Amino acid sequence: MTTLHVRARTVAAELIRTGRQLVLAESCTAGLVAASLGGVPGISRHLCGSAVVYQERTKAAWLDVPESLFASPGVVSAEVAAAMTAGALRRTPFADLAAAVTGHLGPEAPEALDGVVFISVERRDGGPSVTRHSLGYGEAVDPTVARLKRQTEAAELVLRQILEVLSAGH
Amino acid sequence: MTTLHVRARTVAAELIRTGRQLVLAESCTAGLVAASLGGVPGISRHLCGSAVVYQERTKAAWLDVPESLFASPGVVSAEVAAAMTAGALRRTPFADLAAAVTGHLGPEAPEALDGVVFISVERRDGGPSVTRHSLGYGEAVDPTVARLKRQTEAAELVLRQILEVLSAGH
Repeated sequence: MTTLHVRARTVAAELIRTGRQLVLAESCTAGLVAASLGGVPGISRHLCGSAVVYQERTKAAWLDVPESLFASPGVVSAEVAAAMTAGALRRTPFADLAAAVTGHLGPEAPEALDGVVFISVERRDGGPSVTRHSLGYGEAVDPTVARLKRQTEAAELVLRQILEVLSAGH
Repeated sequence: MTTLHVRARTVAAELIRTGRQLVLAESCTAGLVAASLGGVPGISRHLCGSAVVYQERTKAAWLDVPESLFASPGVVSAEVAAAMTAGALRRTPFADLAAAVTGHLGPEAPEALDGVVFISVERRDGGPSVTRHSLGYGEAVDPTVARLKRQTEAAELVLRQILEVLSAGH
């Protein structure tokens, strides 16, 4: 049982406790947040799904993210993260909480964005809460290994932020 | 590097070689197929995304799966798997290959469907190819551990079937 799975169990328990319906929109984590939650028995009653939007055109087609944002401020930005949660809530009328993540995990990222991740969590009855994170290489030397570690780290951060919003109340 | 990651690398290499654009629709694997492919650098040029449709209503809302199928033959069926690839191709006009999976991983599955998984792979220029699999418990005693093993096993089967269709060629 990894840290990711333990954290997923905590989020699942909190979703059950609060009765919330969660929808995800994942770019750089590529479905890892959903997969970690999917390991918890009974989660299907509280996880609507995850739109893994790995290309810009998929973000536009599935979540109505405005294509103008890809040129500026760019696909890895607070604006795109917020547009992803808004789109996920719009496309999933039965969800009442959305979480989204967009970031560059490398190894081919522009230097200024290497390891940068934006996470948005939005309740249907509130505005989005967006955070910025900068992931290091850790001890990894191989960029592919670093990529996998960052994917996991980003997924853990998404789960943490969901938990904060769930615990904050109501 | 697990078997899943090795197989994901093989599929990624074949997507690059053939120039195909893949879209996924995942139920029981909950994003694990996409996450495994997402670990491969450069895959974003060939993986459009994955619709992780974890609830029946999400399958209907995101992929136009007819709700009548959920009553009969049921959500774990060849018909739903095929409807998921058809819907993924319809909702993702730039994809030319779709793969979908629906199944019961337990521990709360009806006995006749415990461990049963249906996988559909469909090329836009061809019909769906649907297979049925029955996953055992392996050596796991804890049903939650069995669930995680089955999630991985199902994801590996999806990747294998994608590879077969890609290699079959044209």
